[in-house]
Amino acid sequence: MEPYTYNNTHESIHPPQHCKKELCDLDYSQDPPRILSNYLVHAPRPFNAEPHLPLLINSGSITPEDVFFKRNHGPIPNIQLEDHTVYIGIQRGLHDNQGQPAPVEWKALDMNDIMTKWPKVTITASLQAVWSGPRLCDILHSVVGVPQELHHEMIRNFHVAFEADDHVKEDACYGSSIPLRKAMDPLGDVILAYEMNGKPLTRDHGYPLRVIVPGYIGARSVKFLQKMIVQPQESSSFFQVDSTNVDSAWDSSPSLGEMNVQCVICTPMDKEVILSSQPVTVKGYAIAGGGRAIYRVELSIDGGKTWEPVDKIEQTPDRVSGMYWAWALWEKEVSKLHTTSQLVVRAYDSSGNMQPEFPIWNYRGVMNNAWFRVSNVIQMPQHNM
Amino acid sequence: MEPYTYNNTHESIHPPQHCKKELCDLDYSQDPPRILSNYLVHAPRPFNAEPHLPLLINSGSITPEDVFFKRNHGPIPNIQLEDHTVYIGIQRGLHDNQGQPAPVEWKALDMNDIMTKWPKVTITASLQAVWSGPRLCDILHSVVGVPQELHHEMIRNFHVAFEADDHVKEDACYGSSIPLRKAMDPLGDVILAYEMNGKPLTRDHGYPLRVIVPGYIGARSVKFLQKMIVQPQESSSFFQVDSTNVDSAWDSSPSLGEMNVQCVICTPMDKEVILSSQPVTVKGYAIAGGGRAIYRVELSIDGGKTWEPVDKIEQTPDRVSGMYWAWALWEKEVSKLHTTSQLVVRAYDSSGNMQPEFPIWNYRGVMNNAWFRVSNVIQMPQHNM
Repeated sequence: MEPYTYNNTHESIHPPQHCKKELCDLDYSQDPPRILSNYLVHAPRPFNAEPHLPLLINSGSITPEDVFFKRNHGPIPNIQLEDHTVYIGIQRGLHDNQGQPAPVEWKALDMNDIMTKWPKVTITASLQAVWSGPRLCDILHSVVGVPQELHHEMIRNFHVAFEADDHVKEDACYGSSIPLRKAMDPLGDVILAYEMNGKPLTRDHGYPLRVIVPGYIGARSVKFLQKMIVQPQESSSFFQVDSTNVDSAWDSSPSLGEMNVQCVICTPMDKEVILSSQPVTVKGYAIAGGGRAIYRVELSIDGGKTWEPVDKIEQTPDRVSGMYWAWALWEKEVSKLHTTSQLVVRAYDSSGNMQPEFPIWNYRGVMNNAWFRVSNVIQMPQHNM
Repeated sequence: MEPYTYNNTHESIHPPQHCKKELCDLDYSQDPPRILSNYLVHAPRPFNAEPHLPLLINSGSITPEDVFFKRNHGPIPNIQLEDHTVYIGIQRGLHDNQGQPAPVEWKALDMNDIMTKWPKVTITASLQAVWSGPRLCDILHSVVGVPQELHHEMIRNFHVAFEADDHVKEDACYGSSIPLRKAMDPLGDVILAYEMNGKPLTRDHGYPLRVIVPGYIGARSVKFLQKMIVQPQESSSFFQVDSTNVDSAWDSSPSLGEMNVQCVICTPMDKEVILSSQPVTVKGYAIAGGGRAIYRVELSIDGGKTWEPVDKIEQTPDRVSGMYWAWALWEKEVSKLHTTSQLVVRAYDSSGNMQPEFPIWNYRGVMNNAWFRVSNVIQMPQHNM
């Protein structure tokens, strides 16, 4: 496929502006139907739910859309594919020659452009779906002329801000940004996805278009994508600055992006009663940030006093970039659980990073990756009734 | 500077072969003189020493050669610059068509080639010196034709093995390898250094040529470089397989490469007596792997019960790649120490990785990055004598 060159029409483009909504002005009546029994629902409006863990692990290595976690900040927008425009802007500096904020030069793409003008690539990324769409680096290069040379000063110092076509109460819309370096890294695998698991995105998962930033915290993978701006500073969105910059004491600190190493026991669950005297297979997943592999997973059945490596870890690198964006599924057979057993799991990534025993970074409670614990599992033999 | 194209002479090159030495055959009589008072010497032969920590931190942000740590596995070779040849080989697969081990095709460079044919770049990398020499990616591309496209299958799956022109008792020579992807990454900053802090390398630090692999454990930055082989598997050297593969239970696990996040208190030291009633400035350094920044450093003066962020952290990214290869220097003023005080420090990197409280990955004791502790510091007012 020939590299696509965006045709600069020289018309002046002004994308629509959202504005912050009052709580009472947010209309949830058009939210899509959901299979609530698959989820532990944390809040109905905005809809925030995580799958029941045994269901998550038992769906196989690819999570179906109706089991995949759902995290929202407002009503799900009701967007028609044929009406949707994606605006791409570039702001070449903070200020112009007069000291005023530098202007953003805008271009516009429709969904047909997005879906036909650049090669469609497919990546598997946590929390574990197959996503397809064009590479963000290809679009930014051909539409607004971002250089592809990783050493270029713009790549080193700029960011790409994303804005959703939605309404929320905290800001004009959901917004976030990632370093331009991540966006342009040929091994970074950032894509604009219009398909999840081989089908068009569902509304809950960002229809018609969302960003997928593998190896980064989920808050950067903006749904209902409407605007992207290449700019010299991070996004000033509430969701970038206030909710994920864990340490406001240091203004110079970048917001968090890459995930840290995490590990979860999916089965058995807290207080589960296992009616069998057979060995129990403990299962779960682990994932690290930045495309790093899961190197080791250890399980304790005595609350963390003694540890053994798990029996099996399966993790597949991306077939093109070779990066470990996908989760590792692990399991371990345990011969006998005691009723007072506390199961604890911890993982190490390929850079020797490991999970801490206790959550110790808790300015805002994000990125807590302390050892995962499951308590009060009771195993007893099954008698004839 | 025009990209240099290596002139393939088509002659058959056979690099010299080393062989494993008995302990009694290792001759240390030609080791260079050293300023022993700067060091805590762990072993005289092979010479292994680390600088006294207050000296390390008080030398400024760049460590002089005679304070920089020294780690060896045998006698320091006595190499003449004008006699030294670097051999570069490529093995295109594991086996040839007959099922025999695939041959290595060799090329040879002298030090004049290394020092004049490719642009000289300079990086600052832990444990903190300024290193200069050509980029390894430039050499591998022009000498043995390694593709520069990061998505190329060879880049994803191959390794570069390094061998030193030295003699050790564990193997034929010191050897190690890194993934070819790290070597070819334009932001990876792997260089072949012939200068340290603006002067030719000293013999203790690898004269005439060494590899510098920023963001990786020091064991990969091979000194006295004599051979490099691009090959489909990791180095089979003792120093790659046995001493840094922490978990021999899993053959499929790669050896460790990237460093994890570490932090050290350089001053005060264990059992130091501070004759002053003034506030004490605690100082140290922190560093993470993979070019990640140090995001936060916290100090406890009560053995880890309560924590405060330090007052100041200074870390400078590489001016070209923007990666954080250099250490972060931090300090915090403490108003009063108690004689029973235990100082503890811990750091977090920009991916949210943090140090664990206790060393928990100890198959071989490598990459222990538990919280660093300084005990029994005594502060008392200075009286007139």
